[in-house]
Amino acid sequence: MFDIAILGAGRIGRIHARNVAAHPDLRLKYVTDPNGTAAGAVAAETGAAVADIDAVLSDEGVRGVIIASSTDLHLDQAARAIAAGKAVLCEKPLDMDLARAQAAAPALGGDVPLMLGFNRRFDPHFATLKSRLDAGAVGALETLQITSHDPAPPPVSYIKVSGGLFKDMAIHDFDMARWLLGEPVTEVYAAASCLVDPAIAAAGDVDTAKTILRTASGKLCVISNSRRSGYGYDQRIEAFGSRGLLRADNILESAVSTWGGSAGAPGIASDAFQNFFLDRYAEAYRREVAHFADILAGRAKPSVGYADGVAALALAEAAAQSVATGQAVRL
Amino acid sequence: MFDIAILGAGRIGRIHARNVAAHPDLRLKYVTDPNGTAAGAVAAETGAAVADIDAVLSDEGVRGVIIASSTDLHLDQAARAIAAGKAVLCEKPLDMDLARAQAAAPALGGDVPLMLGFNRRFDPHFATLKSRLDAGAVGALETLQITSHDPAPPPVSYIKVSGGLFKDMAIHDFDMARWLLGEPVTEVYAAASCLVDPAIAAAGDVDTAKTILRTASGKLCVISNSRRSGYGYDQRIEAFGSRGLLRADNILESAVSTWGGSAGAPGIASDAFQNFFLDRYAEAYRREVAHFADILAGRAKPSVGYADGVAALALAEAAAQSVATGQAVRL
Amino acid sequence: MFDIAILGAGRIGRIHARNVAAHPDLRLKYVTDPNGTAAGAVAAETGAAVADIDAVLSDEGVRGVIIASSTDLHLDQAARAIAAGKAVLCEKPLDMDLARAQAAAPALGGDVPLMLGFNRRFDPHFATLKSRLDAGAVGALETLQITSHDPAPPPVSYIKVSGGLFKDMAIHDFDMARWLLGEPVTEVYAAASCLVDPAIAAAGDVDTAKTILRTASGKLCVISNSRRSGYGYDQRIEAFGSRGLLRADNILESAVSTWGGSAGAPGIASDAFQNFFLDRYAEAYRREVAHFADILAGRAKPSVGYADGVAALALAEAAAQSVATGQAVRL
Amino acid sequence: MFDIAILGAGRIGRIHARNVAAHPDLRLKYVTDPNGTAAGAVAAETGAAVADIDAVLSDEGVRGVIIASSTDLHLDQAARAIAAGKAVLCEKPLDMDLARAQAAAPALGGDVPLMLGFNRRFDPHFATLKSRLDAGAVGALETLQITSHDPAPPPVSYIKVSGGLFKDMAIHDFDMARWLLGEPVTEVYAAASCLVDPAIAAAGDVDTAKTILRTASGKLCVISNSRRSGYGYDQRIEAFGSRGLLRADNILESAVSTWGGSAGAPGIASDAFQNFFLDRYAEAYRREVAHFADILAGRAKPSVGYADGVAALALAEAAAQSVATGQAVRL
Repeated sequence: MFDIAILGAGRIGRIHARNVAAHPDLRLKYVTDPNGTAAGAVAAETGAAVADIDAVLSDEGVRGVIIASSTDLHLDQAARAIAAGKAVLCEKPLDMDLARAQAAAPALGGDVPLMLGFNRRFDPHFATLKSRLDAGAVGALETLQITSHDPAPPPVSYIKVSGGLFKDMAIHDFDMARWLLGEPVTEVYAAASCLVDPAIAAAGDVDTAKTILRTASGKLCVISNSRRSGYGYDQRIEAFGSRGLLRADNILESAVSTWGGSAGAPGIASDAFQNFFLDRYAEAYRREVAHFADILAGRAKPSVGYADGVAALALAEAAAQSVATGQAVRL
Repeated sequence: MFDIAILGAGRIGRIHARNVAAHPDLRLKYVTDPNGTAAGAVAAETGAAVADIDAVLSDEGVRGVIIASSTDLHLDQAARAIAAGKAVLCEKPLDMDLARAQAAAPALGGDVPLMLGFNRRFDPHFATLKSRLDAGAVGALETLQITSHDPAPPPVSYIKVSGGLFKDMAIHDFDMARWLLGEPVTEVYAAASCLVDPAIAAAGDVDTAKTILRTASGKLCVISNSRRSGYGYDQRIEAFGSRGLLRADNILESAVSTWGGSAGAPGIASDAFQNFFLDRYAEAYRREVAHFADILAGRAKPSVGYADGVAALALAEAAAQSVATGQAVRL
Repeated sequence: MFDIAILGAGRIGRIHARNVAAHPDLRLKYVTDPNGTAAGAVAAETGAAVADIDAVLSDEGVRGVIIASSTDLHLDQAARAIAAGKAVLCEKPLDMDLARAQAAAPALGGDVPLMLGFNRRFDPHFATLKSRLDAGAVGALETLQITSHDPAPPPVSYIKVSGGLFKDMAIHDFDMARWLLGEPVTEVYAAASCLVDPAIAAAGDVDTAKTILRTASGKLCVISNSRRSGYGYDQRIEAFGSRGLLRADNILESAVSTWGGSAGAPGIASDAFQNFFLDRYAEAYRREVAHFADILAGRAKPSVGYADGVAALALAEAAAQSVATGQAVRL
Repeated sequence: MFDIAILGAGRIGRIHARNVAAHPDLRLKYVTDPNGTAAGAVAAETGAAVADIDAVLSDEGVRGVIIASSTDLHLDQAARAIAAGKAVLCEKPLDMDLARAQAAAPALGGDVPLMLGFNRRFDPHFATLKSRLDAGAVGALETLQITSHDPAPPPVSYIKVSGGLFKDMAIHDFDMARWLLGEPVTEVYAAASCLVDPAIAAAGDVDTAKTILRTASGKLCVISNSRRSGYGYDQRIEAFGSRGLLRADNILESAVSTWGGSAGAPGIASDAFQNFFLDRYAEAYRREVAHFADILAGRAKPSVGYADGVAALALAEAAAQSVATGQAVRL
């Protein structure tokens, strides 16, 4: 049984807190948050104590720290936790700034495990796709199509501090692309528009983008992003191999379809897609925490870590630069 | 090039007329109908002449006769055409009365080819299912599920002269069951209700039925019938074998689906099913006439004939008797 | 926090034990089993104590008892637990013998809650179908098609003591039919064969059956059962209403499909179906225990109880009688 | 009844010849081909006469000419036919060279109808998608995903004279993009590789490409091309609108699926995709010729013409230039 602290009691912190509390090998000892009410609510629900980060880091019983605070705190908190000898599970993105993230290498790239919270790698559907791809089910991977559209845009107030579509939203897709491509991306081209809400453009961001990644061996990946879909959360992958295609489709709320009737038309209406990431990736979040438990127990090394966080951020910056210059960016 | 006459210029007669006219080996020479306007319309469209049956049968150039007249005329017209040496393609059902149909054996069971118009055997989807079944794709056939629901009931005036749900509508399913089961049915049980329209009950008929057929070796078949679906024309088959299942699904009007948007709900809405038999079985009707051409050319024997018409009618009568008595009927 | 005892540490008992242990409002205090090794394993995994039934029933702290013992013990253990004032969650079937189950009414039909373990009612997919049906999504229910095929037959040694296909396997489908039909079944006809394995016939049982249920108002239900499918666990429902159809399809292991490649053919190969009931109904078992917790907390009455167990058993006996006599059975 | 001549008796010429012969308003009078055997075969099948182009163009009875010759002859033959007052249906691409195609404007852009053979516009599935899009079924179009992968590459000898992947294969997708986007493309970026066969690279071509198109209003379109799929002919479109998504999926050979059994795995295996363009677009070719008949009859103006051919070619050249320079190309 390993004692865990969670830094940050927001939406993601609460998810992790529940999954820690439910895991047989983990115990949630502390939760910290500048917002005492939020921290208190998580503490009440999970039996953890509210504490500040100093108390957490000086408690030698705490073996792991989950960093779910605001992005600007990630690097510093991770460095402090690692300095204190605590294994770290840090939410994405590592930071808003690639240079700062790279500069943290001495602090974060050492022997104390740092796992990065790219939850989609732990999704059972994408993990199935990855393992079949690796097993050669469709031969050698040639190209990828990643579709990642949100059901509806966040408030513009969030957009303004989000780091932009590429660092905030597409960062997951860049990591997914890297994971599946299996070799470094050497070139990035992104075309982007503001089609959903002019307020997003006014905030200096885009809401719709198509990005092409290219690797040294010529593998290609297209990422499609939109802040709004009109039909639910769209999270699909197609991996084209030399002998076939692997496809991960969206997940429906149930296997019930309606033919005619209230569906309003003849033909077949599926149930809705699982609406957003808290539903769609609920199992992924559980498996992510389980992997952290395995790391604490010495049963596993982090399958995704600091270097992955930096690399995804580099792709996000390259994509933003490509939009700004209108040209492809070599890495 | 074989000259053909069509007896009956109603809905089905017109379909056959067009398919004959479009077939490279066939020429539609005559069309007959008590309704001169209907006959004239078909003649105008296809270049055939309007004639009466005596003229048709006495024209030695006519090689084949398609009987698409009202059911009560089928046996007599078929007998006359065969006596005149014309190959016959006779619409289903052979007759409303099993005993009468059986009594026609001397006239209809001889050497002149008589093909029965069980169009569904010529549907490419069901034909694919049948050929895979015969090829052992799912091992030995054990049970069948045939779903056959119409989009909407016909007028009650039609119901009254239709011969009832089993002879009028389920007759196709009985033939399909016989074709796929590949051995004689020995027992029939049918449960039926009037749930769609009380006027159908007042007319002495049912509109909803579930029928179980059993063969000597113990294979089982369920047929589901309804005069109305609420979601379009439902024509599906599941063939359960010792090693798997073959399923023929409904045919959509197009491969276009709508996600959200005018579909009114998140999730995926398929296009509509092909609405009714003239659409759903358009290709089957074409292939049926092509098979008749093959028969005329001596390239084929009728794949479905008089004995099949009698056997399907026997099942329909047994099902009706089962409903009347509430008990299973042994054949 | 309610203390629970589980009687029976077999396959189902173990499932319940884990779900009780994971439920925030329940604590697994005791587990009993004539096989001490099995009881010990469950106790070790969950922190419960191994005990005998007398100790369990005399412990006033125990609020609920889950009966997962062999079927012949169900009625007696349920009666004893209820007499001791413990709420009961009893596995299906209630008993092998309808008369015995009915005779237990005085002991089991009283005020102490008895919930019957028809797990499929708690499956989220079937529950979605039920709630949409009740909400009128397809108008008035007219007919049902329930497909329930196992991936592979159990050992013949199990078949011999199972009570037969209808009481052992189809009992779930009879309960599902009753739940969805919403009115009493008045007539049962079943046709059955032994097509999977002659040893099953030698054991006096059948392995393949099609059953038709009819209600007083004329609603019809077909149940398709087979002990073996060749393609995985087949658990589907179609509910035909006056305005459309609701369909619950099988659940796939993942949303990943393979096109070509190792699927061995052009076209699309889905992932496998969830293989058997422990996978397919894992969430249903969790929700079943959660409902039991709600009952203990006074938040709910049993949604499925003694009367449902008797009624499903009556349908199973009627189906078996129909097979034996070859005729429909009126209830 | 309009007399038609077909220039070119290759694969596509033969398709058109059959569809002309089967159309009630058209008669195939002449077929020309430098290969007399090919011309003779088409003539024998359709009843046309073999002729040379001078004879065709000087026959005043000929109302329409279908140009299905080798690409280098398209512009010249079209100009001659139009000069002779014949309506023209010209196969794609208009020419291999954009400047030459543009220079033909005086000869081809006049009043005599010139229809360009972008067959996919006549595919009923894509036409359904287009009409729903135009009807606002998913709101305003924002982005497109066009997937267009061939089952297998052509011989390298063909590749060498094909004009390259963009002019030979993707030209269809550029036209489809233009048709659906409904506004001019202003920017093209293409990333391409040779992953299928090194001999294609040796021939100076690529076999795999991802192309992004951008319009002035910021709509984006991705085109995915590959010369080989491993799972059949892949022809899909996704149109993302402000309120939902329209998707056109691949067309299966039949609606029969195999569960287990010879499919070799549990789960569901669909039938194969229609294998290549002659199957997949058979109906599109029929409708294309029917549209030409409507033009001849004065019932329609060409829905796709010279300007569309030039514009698609311009996109193909821009894509090739983007691959060559590694940068986006402004139009």
